[in-house]
Amino acid sequence: MSGEQTNPVITEQHPDQFLIQKGKLKLSNPHIQPGQEDVLYHIALGNKSHNLQSLFQDIKFVCMGGSPNRMRQFADYLVSELHINLPSGMGLTNIACGSDRYVLYKVGPVLSVSHGMGVPSLSIIFHEIVKLLHHAGCSDVTFFRLGTSGGLGIEPGSLVITEEAVDGLLRPYMEMATLGRLVQYPSRLDPDLARELQKLALTDPECHCHSTYLSKTMCTLDFYEGQARLDGAFCDYQAEDKMTFLKKVHSSGVANIEMESLCFASYCHRAGIRGAVVCVTLLDRLEGDQITTPHNILEEWQQRPQKLVASYIKLCLNGKNFSSKSS
Amino acid sequence: MSGEQTNPVITEQHPDQFLIQKGKLKLSNPHIQPGQEDVLYHIALGNKSHNLQSLFQDIKFVCMGGSPNRMRQFADYLVSELHINLPSGMGLTNIACGSDRYVLYKVGPVLSVSHGMGVPSLSIIFHEIVKLLHHAGCSDVTFFRLGTSGGLGIEPGSLVITEEAVDGLLRPYMEMATLGRLVQYPSRLDPDLARELQKLALTDPECHCHSTYLSKTMCTLDFYEGQARLDGAFCDYQAEDKMTFLKKVHSSGVANIEMESLCFASYCHRAGIRGAVVCVTLLDRLEGDQITTPHNILEEWQQRPQKLVASYIKLCLNGKNFSSKSS
Repeated sequence: MSGEQTNPVITEQHPDQFLIQKGKLKLSNPHIQPGQEDVLYHIALGNKSHNLQSLFQDIKFVCMGGSPNRMRQFADYLVSELHINLPSGMGLTNIACGSDRYVLYKVGPVLSVSHGMGVPSLSIIFHEIVKLLHHAGCSDVTFFRLGTSGGLGIEPGSLVITEEAVDGLLRPYMEMATLGRLVQYPSRLDPDLARELQKLALTDPECHCHSTYLSKTMCTLDFYEGQARLDGAFCDYQAEDKMTFLKKVHSSGVANIEMESLCFASYCHRAGIRGAVVCVTLLDRLEGDQITTPHNILEEWQQRPQKLVASYIKLCLNGKNFSSKSS
Repeated sequence: MSGEQTNPVITEQHPDQFLIQKGKLKLSNPHIQPGQEDVLYHIALGNKSHNLQSLFQDIKFVCMGGSPNRMRQFADYLVSELHINLPSGMGLTNIACGSDRYVLYKVGPVLSVSHGMGVPSLSIIFHEIVKLLHHAGCSDVTFFRLGTSGGLGIEPGSLVITEEAVDGLLRPYMEMATLGRLVQYPSRLDPDLARELQKLALTDPECHCHSTYLSKTMCTLDFYEGQARLDGAFCDYQAEDKMTFLKKVHSSGVANIEMESLCFASYCHRAGIRGAVVCVTLLDRLEGDQITTPHNILEEWQQRPQKLVASYIKLCLNGKNFSSKSS
């Protein structure tokens, strides 16, 4: 059987309006009915095996990042920043420890979750976290992705807040094969939330990052050839082809390149969830491919998205929620 | 900027011949030169920081699987099966422990490596492992993916050895955006190796699996909608649309569905590496979507690809290498 027989149909979905769900998080899936068993396989939780409502009903923020260690570190940081009093002799525990695919920590109203690397890995955990929040009866939840990326023409260590994610062909949507057809989902993120985060980064001394950009982010399915690197196991192009492409990407308004924003943005959009992607840049891709910066400096840079998002969450919890009057 | 401006060009590469490199593994990348520093960022190794030749020169088999715990378990199993004598007081250690993205264990001539979930995650580790083997001066290396999957019309717990991977549109190649163009790489696996594994599975009592199929495998970018499930956070189709699609996939010669074979197969093909994908099926997708089989049974099933691949490696190391006279 060849691909020609499948006759793929492109379905475009480009609503102009960004619709945010108010109140309880509702699933866009009529097949999931109350009372029916739902096993969240990759995090080893379920609506019959666990009391998801009592465990998670108070969640207001979901923070995702690629690395399990970094999301543990973020959870520890939140314990201190949000002044959470852990019961004597208690520590944080990975709630998804029945599986080794992802880690999941709860710190007050915040979930800190790892998503692994790449769109498919993020897709799985996004589906399961949204179902978890639905079963728990959560409302008004905001999602963040805290990531690392390669920058384009900006100083390494800068923060980039994504306005819109584009794919490797610079298209502003995620294309997914569903039932043998290609379907496209727009990948715009909440513009108010992005601006609020930028304003906070530029004004709050705790964020320690005055190089903060609001821009497009390119999301690729591969770290090496997909991002025009010359240092993969395969490379069929020349250094000048790479530079021509990266400059074209840069001039189209893209400030950084990573591997998950397209799915995160399009799923937030589909679910009507307020979402933001905040990434630090680990190098300037117009200057090179390899990440050779010393470990301790990379560590400090990787804390920058964490500091910004933690500051934002603190403001919201203290009642200074920017969302009523956006800048 | 819209996608229309990028004007993607489809480049087809469908060589009829399956070319296996003899002798030392050579990179298809003229930019990586001897003596130049190469940081393998996601496994925290490098050709300057580590003596890769002394560490890895004897590697003949690379075994990859999604879950870090399962690849640790496989490494422990190989210690016993290959009668490796660990020095007194010593145990296996994760060689990639400087990063938390993947795990990497060495057991004699075998590397046991986790690849995470999905094509992009596998892509990164494949690039870095091929570069590692190149720097180490390895030759005649065979790659295996040991995975889990959803079956189509076959008993759960069956083994499927992939002849060819197809994408969500049933196309027998991986399509990747490189420098703003879509490039297609054929995803056929070594037919001799696949037949040798099937023969072994059907004759070796240690493999404990007489339900072993040689067939196409569908590889998707998403676990829920991409695999026509009704139990994701989103679902825009009906139960009958799902069944029509799955039956069409099944009738095209696909016996199982997973999320990595397309990249694994096409990269093996590009690199001239003998490679095989061996997956166990955890459910029959024509019967349902949720994985509700008890944990201990799933555990036993997940050992089946390990037992088959370990048996194959033992035969090769004992000089009974099927590859000279394939069945």
